[in-house]
Amino acid sequence: MTSPSGDTGLLAPGWSGSAAAAATGDPAYLRALLDAEAALTRAQAALGLAPAEAATAVTEAAGGAFDAESLAGRARAGGNPVIPLVADLTKAVGDPYGPYVHRGATSQDILDTATMLVASRALGPVLADLGRTEQALARLAAEHRDTAMPGRTLTQHAVPTTFGLKAAGWRSLVLDARDRVRAVRESLPAQLGGAAGTLAAFGAYGGSDPAALPEAYAGELGLRAPDLPWHTLRTPIGDLAGCLAFAAGALGKVAVDVLTLSRTEIAEVAEGSGGGSSAMPHKSNPVRSTLIASAARRAPQLAATLYGSMAAEDERPAGAWHAEWEPLRDLLRLVGGAARDAAELAEGLRVRPEAMREHLDLTHGLVVSERLSAELAPLLGRARARELLTRLAAEGRPLAEAPELADVDLDPTHYTGSAGALTDRALERR
Amino acid sequence: MTSPSGDTGLLAPGWSGSAAAAATGDPAYLRALLDAEAALTRAQAALGLAPAEAATAVTEAAGGAFDAESLAGRARAGGNPVIPLVADLTKAVGDPYGPYVHRGATSQDILDTATMLVASRALGPVLADLGRTEQALARLAAEHRDTAMPGRTLTQHAVPTTFGLKAAGWRSLVLDARDRVRAVRESLPAQLGGAAGTLAAFGAYGGSDPAALPEAYAGELGLRAPDLPWHTLRTPIGDLAGCLAFAAGALGKVAVDVLTLSRTEIAEVAEGSGGGSSAMPHKSNPVRSTLIASAARRAPQLAATLYGSMAAEDERPAGAWHAEWEPLRDLLRLVGGAARDAAELAEGLRVRPEAMREHLDLTHGLVVSERLSAELAPLLGRARARELLTRLAAEGRPLAEAPELADVDLDPTHYTGSAGALTDRALERR
Amino acid sequence: MTSPSGDTGLLAPGWSGSAAAAATGDPAYLRALLDAEAALTRAQAALGLAPAEAATAVTEAAGGAFDAESLAGRARAGGNPVIPLVADLTKAVGDPYGPYVHRGATSQDILDTATMLVASRALGPVLADLGRTEQALARLAAEHRDTAMPGRTLTQHAVPTTFGLKAAGWRSLVLDARDRVRAVRESLPAQLGGAAGTLAAFGAYGGSDPAALPEAYAGELGLRAPDLPWHTLRTPIGDLAGCLAFAAGALGKVAVDVLTLSRTEIAEVAEGSGGGSSAMPHKSNPVRSTLIASAARRAPQLAATLYGSMAAEDERPAGAWHAEWEPLRDLLRLVGGAARDAAELAEGLRVRPEAMREHLDLTHGLVVSERLSAELAPLLGRARARELLTRLAAEGRPLAEAPELADVDLDPTHYTGSAGALTDRALERR
Amino acid sequence: MTSPSGDTGLLAPGWSGSAAAAATGDPAYLRALLDAEAALTRAQAALGLAPAEAATAVTEAAGGAFDAESLAGRARAGGNPVIPLVADLTKAVGDPYGPYVHRGATSQDILDTATMLVASRALGPVLADLGRTEQALARLAAEHRDTAMPGRTLTQHAVPTTFGLKAAGWRSLVLDARDRVRAVRESLPAQLGGAAGTLAAFGAYGGSDPAALPEAYAGELGLRAPDLPWHTLRTPIGDLAGCLAFAAGALGKVAVDVLTLSRTEIAEVAEGSGGGSSAMPHKSNPVRSTLIASAARRAPQLAATLYGSMAAEDERPAGAWHAEWEPLRDLLRLVGGAARDAAELAEGLRVRPEAMREHLDLTHGLVVSERLSAELAPLLGRARARELLTRLAAEGRPLAEAPELADVDLDPTHYTGSAGALTDRALERR
Repeated sequence: MTSPSGDTGLLAPGWSGSAAAAATGDPAYLRALLDAEAALTRAQAALGLAPAEAATAVTEAAGGAFDAESLAGRARAGGNPVIPLVADLTKAVGDPYGPYVHRGATSQDILDTATMLVASRALGPVLADLGRTEQALARLAAEHRDTAMPGRTLTQHAVPTTFGLKAAGWRSLVLDARDRVRAVRESLPAQLGGAAGTLAAFGAYGGSDPAALPEAYAGELGLRAPDLPWHTLRTPIGDLAGCLAFAAGALGKVAVDVLTLSRTEIAEVAEGSGGGSSAMPHKSNPVRSTLIASAARRAPQLAATLYGSMAAEDERPAGAWHAEWEPLRDLLRLVGGAARDAAELAEGLRVRPEAMREHLDLTHGLVVSERLSAELAPLLGRARARELLTRLAAEGRPLAEAPELADVDLDPTHYTGSAGALTDRALERR
Repeated sequence: MTSPSGDTGLLAPGWSGSAAAAATGDPAYLRALLDAEAALTRAQAALGLAPAEAATAVTEAAGGAFDAESLAGRARAGGNPVIPLVADLTKAVGDPYGPYVHRGATSQDILDTATMLVASRALGPVLADLGRTEQALARLAAEHRDTAMPGRTLTQHAVPTTFGLKAAGWRSLVLDARDRVRAVRESLPAQLGGAAGTLAAFGAYGGSDPAALPEAYAGELGLRAPDLPWHTLRTPIGDLAGCLAFAAGALGKVAVDVLTLSRTEIAEVAEGSGGGSSAMPHKSNPVRSTLIASAARRAPQLAATLYGSMAAEDERPAGAWHAEWEPLRDLLRLVGGAARDAAELAEGLRVRPEAMREHLDLTHGLVVSERLSAELAPLLGRARARELLTRLAAEGRPLAEAPELADVDLDPTHYTGSAGALTDRALERR
Repeated sequence: MTSPSGDTGLLAPGWSGSAAAAATGDPAYLRALLDAEAALTRAQAALGLAPAEAATAVTEAAGGAFDAESLAGRARAGGNPVIPLVADLTKAVGDPYGPYVHRGATSQDILDTATMLVASRALGPVLADLGRTEQALARLAAEHRDTAMPGRTLTQHAVPTTFGLKAAGWRSLVLDARDRVRAVRESLPAQLGGAAGTLAAFGAYGGSDPAALPEAYAGELGLRAPDLPWHTLRTPIGDLAGCLAFAAGALGKVAVDVLTLSRTEIAEVAEGSGGGSSAMPHKSNPVRSTLIASAARRAPQLAATLYGSMAAEDERPAGAWHAEWEPLRDLLRLVGGAARDAAELAEGLRVRPEAMREHLDLTHGLVVSERLSAELAPLLGRARARELLTRLAAEGRPLAEAPELADVDLDPTHYTGSAGALTDRALERR
Repeated sequence: MTSPSGDTGLLAPGWSGSAAAAATGDPAYLRALLDAEAALTRAQAALGLAPAEAATAVTEAAGGAFDAESLAGRARAGGNPVIPLVADLTKAVGDPYGPYVHRGATSQDILDTATMLVASRALGPVLADLGRTEQALARLAAEHRDTAMPGRTLTQHAVPTTFGLKAAGWRSLVLDARDRVRAVRESLPAQLGGAAGTLAAFGAYGGSDPAALPEAYAGELGLRAPDLPWHTLRTPIGDLAGCLAFAAGALGKVAVDVLTLSRTEIAEVAEGSGGGSSAMPHKSNPVRSTLIASAARRAPQLAATLYGSMAAEDERPAGAWHAEWEPLRDLLRLVGGAARDAAELAEGLRVRPEAMREHLDLTHGLVVSERLSAELAPLLGRARARELLTRLAAEGRPLAEAPELADVDLDPTHYTGSAGALTDRALERR
């Protein structure tokens, strides 16, 4: 039965049902906590610090079912869920190997390690979706290499650009996000330090080489071995915050552009399958972009909380650590959902070159006024050229009718500059 | 069965199991959405815009069970859960009254109204817990009106203060939070505007007075009738953000003080029942304060996201609205959990006056150097008085041994200034 | 000579040169610090705790010129500018009244009080500009009470609304901001507590009534007398954060709407005097809205820092207090500049009803599909009505040509619902 | 004369007077804007797109004095300072080379490039100060490799650690910050794209190779040549936000630890030269740590604003770009000031091993209870061992007196685990 206070995504159309959701929910977190406990015993066994049978027993027990909601309730007393989980797991292992559960570890060893596992598992699909996105954007950029459209600055038509260059720019941001996420994912370390990060308890249980156990433990989990216990040296958290906020921002750029270009009056692009309305049958809303934009609004402040937690006092802080758990998970979910939506968006985006071409004429030729400045300045002087164009702009007449401009090429599609060449070069990046 | 990606509080010892958790979970949100739909039909019936039987039928059907997780999945298409909920509820009502479900409304009418209901319901226990907290703090302040302790500035002993004044100060912050939360709670409006906030569809269904239906609707729900539809006039959201961030900060002040005073070396206070450790049997951690401090670290950035969403374009924004849902709920939960913890903390706090008294001597009398400055300045001149005290401070000898100070009252408990009177005055506030 | 590292607004077109800039710059802050020092001596003289001549001497000296940059340099040693200022002011007063400077006070008494003075002084013009803004918006709302335009949701045309209702909505947000700013401004307290907030040093100098001196001091400055010293009870800071973030968000809503409606393709409104471009003579950019929108993006995070500083440990915190100074000033500046820009924007806004009317036809009648649903549902059943409209929408033909709709009023200007009545009611608010 | 609203650092003891302050003030920004303009003309001359004399004339004129405050005032009209600067510089160059000023560029080309220059110049001293800091920390770590002290978790003594390991951990964070800042600094690109990022205007002036001019331009400035114009592809801004928030957090960790360990009751470390008080001659405040901690509280929210600006619509956004300028400068200043303070802090830190040793006995032996658990568990069973220790802890008697522990090594300095070995390994990193 669902918990009376349980969440199943009702307020989260942006990430509900995504791979990131499955990888970050309480069940997945609980699984990662159990994986961390089992790996610890196995690592100790591998180094001869525990019997092989203990490793087997703990691993088997950890594969069983535990009650997340009951753990949550009992987590209140000590302030973290590992304390009751150790009790439950020890009981599940039973005699004689129960005492090998969590031996020498501190709660934070297990919770931090589980967080790294969850992050690594959630970022796998994120990278896949960023890959789908950049490939779809590459196709759009190539296909529309020479599709001219208005370049817009401060909401106003400026000079022509191409949709190819726009899509290539989106892609370059997605690739930047991918590179940063991938690098951080590959750097995620296991956590192992014992009560105050000195590994002392492991020594008490017979370990002597400070590097051996953390390495074996990290190896069991597919994580990097830490250089130092990082209970209050939060580099991995800061790095995750940065790459996730970056990714949200990168996808957010795509989203706000699609939202603008989808406006009823602009309609230069449309999402493949727009969302409906409860009241208006005709509406086709840019829902994917909306949800991505929503994630991009939230991610920076979640990252701020994580960066703020880097200033963590002592060997375990009273608040800064606890303040990381939910915001980091939220970031993983938001970016996971946004990457999924971005892939769908990019793969389904419908582009309307004819609308773009039509809009290039909305300013009656002024969209090429920058070029006109350049061409007229040598003839008339910069000041008089500017004056002429300002006057023509104020009159609102088509420039083509101005006798002063009779011999000038006013075709906006001829004024896309290096857009094509820039697009080509950008597409070479892999 | 619990959803594979469902959350039941595993990462949330701060608010898991609290009244706020119960009032804000997906089931509670779903309940509020259904309450809003039923109230709308009842309000229409009350004004003669729908048959009384429709009101009964919708209300009855809305009392039934709906599947939050299925709704979450189907919310993705349109970007909000109301669209599939209307479908399910209409079906549940069946013929002939199904068409009266959601009639004239837009998704945002229902979701915003449900959010106000959820906020109002969650803030009830918050106010109760703030009340318990301030009462416990009042008792502490009265009891320790004259318990002298070191006042600390920039981590160093400054001059004496009293624990009574400290507790009275905490209480005044809690009362400030209570006043702000209460005022906002009483101002929460229902939302009703139809597709673009003109109430047009209700007119199409026969309503003519623009005030009547919103008033009847709000009345059904115990909310305030809105002055205008506020789909993109987000005063209620901004006000909630402000009072919740304030409350988190107010409780956070209590928490950081308790954390400091609980340090092993200081130990002037202790939480009634400290939290244990998975590795160290002797530890008694200030867990309540830790969890409150954690909430206080997160709340400001969640409020920032809400304030940022006030700049919402058009008649419904593409992202800003969606970005409010989870952060507002998170804020309600964090403050709800923190208020519960604060009540427990204040009611159980153990105070150790003897440790406070002992610490007043740690600086060998220098804790009253401000007073000495005042007393010696007229005798020696300000500069020479300062010089003398600086020299004595550098020497580290007890001031009582300095011949220059032979006739001066060095008892730090005699130098608490108006602490008692200030405490008395502060406790008069109700 | 300008300081080599001095700022004079180069990066701040949003607030440079505004009344808020003048009220918050280092010279204004220095003035407020000196005002606070002088008021303290005058208050002590008024209560007989200092000679009247001392009050005169300190007030006169405080009226002189002090070197802000030199103070800044010397502030580094102790971490705040009051310490060197007291030295300079004492020297300027000279014998015999120098010792009456700052007597009994702590740096925070003076800096917090100066901050309240600066805030109060900066908020005066803010309130005036909010007043100008709301009046201009009231005129726009009245004038365009019945100017129909497309209501837009998730970037798409939804149903008609009126520009009058939109302007009335903007105004209601501005009034909400005004009310919140005004209430906070009237609540701003002086700060007086001495080293640890017990007023002990004042007692040492002869004061006995804990209320008398703070009241006299606040009275000298036109601030409210504090209930308690609030060195670490930061209600005034939290309240300022909230009302300023709210105001920025309220003005931000106006700005993002103007930005959208100013787009080249939409052009339903235009700023009175748009900004130019360094490269394109024809451009008329919505610069006022851009700068307001920029302020609205920054304010929430600045407020978050202030809310975060409420959790301030001890009797003076090591970091939280210092972290308030610049963000609060930034908030005052941003809101001050945004209010100035909003007043100019509202007073100069050009509205183009004909463009609005034209756009109502862009969806070939579908902008009234909500109404059609309502009218057709009783005739055809809700499902068949929806089906019909969805089909017509997909065909892209004008609805007026559909034989099924031959008898239906499709004029979008007839479908603005209660927009007019809502506007009228909103304009009654003062 | 100083501007009436000018700032010279009065509220900024944290960064006032620092190298970062000098590198980021309005004069430095103005210098960078002029450097960018001059470099553009020189690059055009180098490619034969402008006469060599123009390059000389513009470079010479750009070396002159311009009025930052006047520019600030005139920046309001167009919303950025480059527009009036181009006018002033063109006038200063005069005939006949004035027209070569800013030719083909857009304001954002110049402002973004200047921002990169300012960032690069400000980060130079930051890296130097991080270097000083890590070296001083390395010395502390080596010197105190075996200085035992209490490890503290959730404010309570946990198990022993060493000051060497603590200092080595601080250093590892500083090195992480250095690596991230250095990598970002080396990646900072020039900006060049013209009105909408297509480089079209440069083509109009004769350039044909889209890569040549940006490369020549970047080369003149010592910046990286951009892959694409990045007017709305804000990777450099996001990367700066991330590395600066990280650096602030890393230094913040050092600061909060020093603040804790400096407390009057703990006093295990002291800043080399503490800050004084305006009222209490004896006080020696940890001012450097306080100011660093203050920066660490502000930086995350400034970074959040920058990450939020990544979602920048169109070819130049209406607000998101403008919202970057001041926050990025603030971040550079805060981190620059914090790095300076951290270097002073680390170089001057006084360590008191005898206080650390003394505190290890505060819990009467319980600080080694983790070890006792390990040693007793095999003898008594885990449950009974835990019970025994819990009982002894509750009794508050020295463990050395407990007969059950007669044969156990209770010396806490023997229970620092791998702290020494971890320190050695960490110090190998360069």
